[in-house]
Amino acid sequence: MPKPWATLGVDLHLEPAGGGLRRGLTDALREAVRTGRLAQGTRLPSSRSLAADLGIARNTVAEAYAELVAEGWLTARQGSGTRVADREVIPPTGGAAAARAIAPPHAPARPVPAPRPERPRPAYDLVPGTPDLSAFPRTEWLKAARRAFLAAPNHALGYGDPRGHVELRTALAGYLSRARGVRADPDHVIVCAGFAHGLHLLATVLRARGLKTVAVESYGLPPHWRQLTRAGLTTTPLPFDELGTNPGELDDQGAVLLTPAHQFPMGVPLHRDRRATVVDWARRTGGVVLEDDYDGEFRYDRQPLGALQGLDPDRVVYLGTASKSLAPGLRLGWMVLPPTLLEEVTEAKGGVDTCGTPDQLTLAEFLTSGAYDRHVRAARLRYRRRRDALVRTLATHAPHLQVTGIAAGLHAVLRLPPGTEQSVTQAATWQGLALHGLTTYRHESATVPPLDALVVGYGTPPDHAWAGALEALGRVLP
Amino acid sequence: MPKPWATLGVDLHLEPAGGGLRRGLTDALREAVRTGRLAQGTRLPSSRSLAADLGIARNTVAEAYAELVAEGWLTARQGSGTRVADREVIPPTGGAAAARAIAPPHAPARPVPAPRPERPRPAYDLVPGTPDLSAFPRTEWLKAARRAFLAAPNHALGYGDPRGHVELRTALAGYLSRARGVRADPDHVIVCAGFAHGLHLLATVLRARGLKTVAVESYGLPPHWRQLTRAGLTTTPLPFDELGTNPGELDDQGAVLLTPAHQFPMGVPLHRDRRATVVDWARRTGGVVLEDDYDGEFRYDRQPLGALQGLDPDRVVYLGTASKSLAPGLRLGWMVLPPTLLEEVTEAKGGVDTCGTPDQLTLAEFLTSGAYDRHVRAARLRYRRRRDALVRTLATHAPHLQVTGIAAGLHAVLRLPPGTEQSVTQAATWQGLALHGLTTYRHESATVPPLDALVVGYGTPPDHAWAGALEALGRVLP
Repeated sequence: MPKPWATLGVDLHLEPAGGGLRRGLTDALREAVRTGRLAQGTRLPSSRSLAADLGIARNTVAEAYAELVAEGWLTARQGSGTRVADREVIPPTGGAAAARAIAPPHAPARPVPAPRPERPRPAYDLVPGTPDLSAFPRTEWLKAARRAFLAAPNHALGYGDPRGHVELRTALAGYLSRARGVRADPDHVIVCAGFAHGLHLLATVLRARGLKTVAVESYGLPPHWRQLTRAGLTTTPLPFDELGTNPGELDDQGAVLLTPAHQFPMGVPLHRDRRATVVDWARRTGGVVLEDDYDGEFRYDRQPLGALQGLDPDRVVYLGTASKSLAPGLRLGWMVLPPTLLEEVTEAKGGVDTCGTPDQLTLAEFLTSGAYDRHVRAARLRYRRRRDALVRTLATHAPHLQVTGIAAGLHAVLRLPPGTEQSVTQAATWQGLALHGLTTYRHESATVPPLDALVVGYGTPPDHAWAGALEALGRVLP
Repeated sequence: MPKPWATLGVDLHLEPAGGGLRRGLTDALREAVRTGRLAQGTRLPSSRSLAADLGIARNTVAEAYAELVAEGWLTARQGSGTRVADREVIPPTGGAAAARAIAPPHAPARPVPAPRPERPRPAYDLVPGTPDLSAFPRTEWLKAARRAFLAAPNHALGYGDPRGHVELRTALAGYLSRARGVRADPDHVIVCAGFAHGLHLLATVLRARGLKTVAVESYGLPPHWRQLTRAGLTTTPLPFDELGTNPGELDDQGAVLLTPAHQFPMGVPLHRDRRATVVDWARRTGGVVLEDDYDGEFRYDRQPLGALQGLDPDRVVYLGTASKSLAPGLRLGWMVLPPTLLEEVTEAKGGVDTCGTPDQLTLAEFLTSGAYDRHVRAARLRYRRRRDALVRTLATHAPHLQVTGIAAGLHAVLRLPPGTEQSVTQAATWQGLALHGLTTYRHESATVPPLDALVVGYGTPPDHAWAGALEALGRVLP
């Protein structure tokens, strides 16, 4: 039998990188496709034969293939094996605009290397975390930008308040007060570039105060935990039971990061008694509560529970963003801070405003003109319908699977039969469906027994792709 | 015992709404508080007695109370029961929009506290650092925003590359290459929120690498030095003589911050031999050069000297911004980094993009469409005329005072007779003229003999105030 690798005629330079063999293999294959050494349409050897050829485990090859399928470099079709994807699916690299920039009419430009292609997107995307970007109200946003920008005084374009523009802080304080029960004085609002930026600033401040540990939830977003460890903090998960996160074991951690309105990803609100427990703990120990109110706008069955911050604005830092309600690309978030933290967080920001005047003033105008409310109402309806469709489809086609959590947000948790999560997500990857299992969101030190489930982000697909995404989901369910 | 509800004298209209009894009760109570029917400070009946009175479960009342406490309408304190919160502690409601959301259109909105008055601006402003904000090309900017935003693919609104949008990095690489001789690969460009943000990130990285000291110039911007000390670094000034900053004494500092094209504020370019000395030092010692190219676009007598970065992109970090060429309020800056620093700086950014998509894409469009070049050309002409007017005025009315530095930038240094600087700046303050003496920009550890001079920022006043500012300056000169 000829060596399958030899058949490909590609030299892999397979050196175990930091991430080990799998990472090395993935990188080498990606590079081979990117540079064209592996031509479009080339059929790759089966994972079994390539593994034998390279003398490595079959799983290692299968995982590398799966990752490259998810990234769009390879395609996998039942019956036709794994092939190098057609170039058409790789997004453009800047094209005409780039050419114009590089070669101005009169100056001989030095050559600028083309930017790397962005990671290709899968056919369907049910990964939670991003709203339907096709529904972003572009025209309304541009109108608000025009109104806000033409009305702004000249000095609004100068060096501004490090906390952010007062127009935006005032609009946010009003909005958060009425919509989320936040006790917000515009002076205590700090505009930041999204949740991760806000958490990064708070982590820096807490570390500088001498904190070593932050309690987090057993389930959550690993990038948020990494944001804390990046600042030198250790994260310790709180227990999780049928009532949700249990803060009863909070001790001397100094700070806790929670999603009280709608636990991410489990989808339950923090139990009333436990809200009180958290605040009591903070008062007793001088601890700080970081409240991640990531999708507080989206509750479908009743009024959302007010923010935990309303219980004790001196102990709770409220964090919110426009990332779910409008778009992550705006990079606009906000913190409502206890007065004792204001100065330190401003310092951590480098003592300067980090968000652009045009975008800040546009959001302020969006909020005060009512455009924000209108957009959120329409989005709520859209996501509610999607959630209903998801629940209906599952009730019909997979009645043995249970959707858990409250009717809220942009994602649902779908319980799977024990032991099936990995095979379902793998099948999804092979079908070009981006889909995360619950395991992705489980803290590595969590003591809660592992649970097989999917976290289905129904907010992400554009309307035209929603039915297809739902069908693709149906095909991979057990 | 009187009915507690009767005691309150409030008609609840307690009809089970969609959300059931609890929802109905919560809404009715909120409405009663909002409209003032339940006055501030009113103590509510215990949940037990109100539940008995209404004939509903105690839990229903307790939950309604808890929710309203969470929302800030009620307060609950150990020992004093549940009360209607003081109006003062309820944050503003955002005026018209809020009134629409909470209350029917005819209800009077709760007053919104006025934002704190900003620091009053002087009658005339000759402090350097800000361009003429009245000349910001608002209409052009909005047009570019419209073109860029309507053409952007949906995914441009998602979570982006932590380095910034590839369109902007590509446009910047092209622009910096032709306009400033920067050797820029879009992959090595990181978009940041202005110079201070970029320096903050670099200082964090250098400190984490173990650096203790950064060499700076004897004259410079104290906020930049503070940005370094904030990160735990010490700044040591290099000598300054008639040829400008002298890097000959660079030793084991590990990094140096320079303004090579146009020393700020002294206005001289870094001498050719000294450019070579700096790069030699960096190569010999593994040191890093931070090049602050703050006004490289504005040279009036000849082509500006290319960026120092062009001499050795592996040793020099290039920093530029839109703050002088467009406006500081855009909060858009850029770094071109040696590959070895890329990952660390991205990490210091928190691993996320910090600048908004609309503003980033607009600047990219501004650069590639030629609007940026047109604006810079017009600004160059405006500032050159102002500089000429300043020099002419001084030659006529104060021929004993010398304007030093090259014909460039947005400020000039005006030498004063020894011992007069303080009295001149004091006189200016009394006349409502914002004006800085050179002392403001002298490093406290500088060994260069103090020099009496003014740093006149002629870029700041709007056109209509320029003549007045010049006159005001004339009145305070010795």
